[in-house]
Amino acid sequence: MLKAGILGGGQLGRMLLQAAANYPVITHVMEKSMDCPAGHLCHHFTAGDITNEEQVYTFGKGLDVLTIEIERVNVAALERLHAEGVRVIPHPAVIRTIQKKISQKSFYVEHSIPTPDYVITQTAAELSQLTDRLPAVHKLSEGGYDGRGVQVITKQEDVSLAFDAPAILEKMIDIRRELSMLVACSEQGELAVYPPVEMMVDPYLNQLDYQISPAILPDEIYWKAEAIAVKVVQSFKSPGLFAVELLVDSNNDVWVNETAPRVHNSGHHTMEGNYSSQFDMLWRILLNYPLGNTDPVLPSAMVNLVGAADYAGKAIYEGLEQVLSMDHCFVHIYGKEETRPGRKMGHITVMHNDRSELLHLCNKIKHTVRVIAPKS
Amino acid sequence: MLKAGILGGGQLGRMLLQAAANYPVITHVMEKSMDCPAGHLCHHFTAGDITNEEQVYTFGKGLDVLTIEIERVNVAALERLHAEGVRVIPHPAVIRTIQKKISQKSFYVEHSIPTPDYVITQTAAELSQLTDRLPAVHKLSEGGYDGRGVQVITKQEDVSLAFDAPAILEKMIDIRRELSMLVACSEQGELAVYPPVEMMVDPYLNQLDYQISPAILPDEIYWKAEAIAVKVVQSFKSPGLFAVELLVDSNNDVWVNETAPRVHNSGHHTMEGNYSSQFDMLWRILLNYPLGNTDPVLPSAMVNLVGAADYAGKAIYEGLEQVLSMDHCFVHIYGKEETRPGRKMGHITVMHNDRSELLHLCNKIKHTVRVIAPKS
Repeated sequence: MLKAGILGGGQLGRMLLQAAANYPVITHVMEKSMDCPAGHLCHHFTAGDITNEEQVYTFGKGLDVLTIEIERVNVAALERLHAEGVRVIPHPAVIRTIQKKISQKSFYVEHSIPTPDYVITQTAAELSQLTDRLPAVHKLSEGGYDGRGVQVITKQEDVSLAFDAPAILEKMIDIRRELSMLVACSEQGELAVYPPVEMMVDPYLNQLDYQISPAILPDEIYWKAEAIAVKVVQSFKSPGLFAVELLVDSNNDVWVNETAPRVHNSGHHTMEGNYSSQFDMLWRILLNYPLGNTDPVLPSAMVNLVGAADYAGKAIYEGLEQVLSMDHCFVHIYGKEETRPGRKMGHITVMHNDRSELLHLCNKIKHTVRVIAPKS
Repeated sequence: MLKAGILGGGQLGRMLLQAAANYPVITHVMEKSMDCPAGHLCHHFTAGDITNEEQVYTFGKGLDVLTIEIERVNVAALERLHAEGVRVIPHPAVIRTIQKKISQKSFYVEHSIPTPDYVITQTAAELSQLTDRLPAVHKLSEGGYDGRGVQVITKQEDVSLAFDAPAILEKMIDIRRELSMLVACSEQGELAVYPPVEMMVDPYLNQLDYQISPAILPDEIYWKAEAIAVKVVQSFKSPGLFAVELLVDSNNDVWVNETAPRVHNSGHHTMEGNYSSQFDMLWRILLNYPLGNTDPVLPSAMVNLVGAADYAGKAIYEGLEQVLSMDHCFVHIYGKEETRPGRKMGHITVMHNDRSELLHLCNKIKHTVRVIAPKS
């Protein structure tokens, strides 16, 4: 059986391994501690630092294929492994480009992919020279994640909030919609495109509130979104499963926000909602099988279950039983011992032919379940 | 987190553990060798003999809840554990009743549950006194599985084929349909009934050829099947997930063939075809969650992938790529290294709103994929 490795053992790894059990494959995972969401679901677990070159190299040597569930991995090791014949999906060059917002933005510009206008800043002080560009969004080039490393700079006085590290200052888009396009690319360059997903974002946490698939869009936006997402993935010239996050403005122009070269939160609904889930699809690419069917089984929606504000400690899923007794819901708890404010603890997918019922159920779920901890 | 144990680590355990990853639960598995389909998907694996009283007792002691994926387990150990406060689902008494065909049949008779008429035989010689009952089916009381331990005795000359061990000689039913009813029962006695499944059986291997859900049945049969399945499960007075196999004769009478007090081959389609799969449902029972929704998402069918005759050795899945490129199919390979004639190696589920398309796809799958081994 083929030996496949995953760098990272969070919930994405967990769900990848659930899907792996449908295929003949020996799975290897590297993560800091076995006590992570994916640690117990693989054939071979390696405790290690996925940002350490020698550890990643040693882990990958001898495997047939390697993938990632997070971008913050050591790329130098992946390049060595790739050069020595280990298949690395996505290609290391893609991860290197995407790891830094600065190189990711340059990539879009070089490939004439529409992305919000920006300038590069190296220090916070530079922003005082750029006030003509406000309001704008300051984004750390490295280390931003789930809303961290992003700062809205509306007026001159906000300049003190700027990051004193390499960053981009990005023009603020008059966002009317946020979409995600999942695109699969096989080793042979064949593509499979999922229907667009509309994401509703929590403005406080900058985390996904809920998402609907397929998004109902005017044709004009639909075709632009698909064309742009395909162009992004084709430009990377790499096999993999990609999530292209798109912004639609008040002129119905479509802009690439960012791309994840891996399975992604915006694709969780595909586990039940589409014939081939994003996790199944990535295994098909890793195992060199034909790509799967991206058609929806039924319309679906997904609600993230994140740690409630003001609670940290052993997770308690308040209201979970009520959600479990609701029809058409699929509960996914990631098995993390500890909750923290905003931490992704699980998600719930809803499937229904009636879209108003989908929204109704999402709203009901959001008001029913909370991840809290015992008051200390 | 609750600690749950599974006795047996075959494909049913594998799929149970895939479903377990949706919930906060620590999983323990006992099986002969870790190199079994479920061995790598649990938190804690114990190599041991599930028919050995002390080993099962030691495994179960300290767990919160125990279940089985096969009936051939040590019941005495489960009775001790149950008495000491470990939840055992299904109850040990149910497993004891079902392990032996003789006690299982007596149970149906005692509870006025329709089951084909039979007599008990202790030796092969007894059959020569029972020729007025031919044609009949001789079934070993213990150890029969997947068609083994079942012998059709048509005429006096066949008596030499009879089993020389405790068995039942069962009246042959003029079978027109074989149905399976999956019924879930919670600790509180609440029931959830899946739509009936029609099974098409390979007469040579006595293994499932393909199955369709929901079965399209005349109302009369539908209601009888449901009423009988519910009666069987209520009579057991035990929580669990039960598969009640039913035979329908030419008078549209419905008879219980046998019951499995566990997840079952006839429920595999529920993984994609129903809102709560049989595996999800059993976890809900084990974790004391509300029962799930048994509604079909879409009509579905399932094809077993068994080892081709005349091949034994390292499994090769001939034609798998063609099936993977067919729309509406879900492939499940159990990860067994070695194939043998008739060995269950995987299954493929198909979902489609159009039932004639379902049958067409099942037939296409059966003629596309074969599990073989290299010719020695």
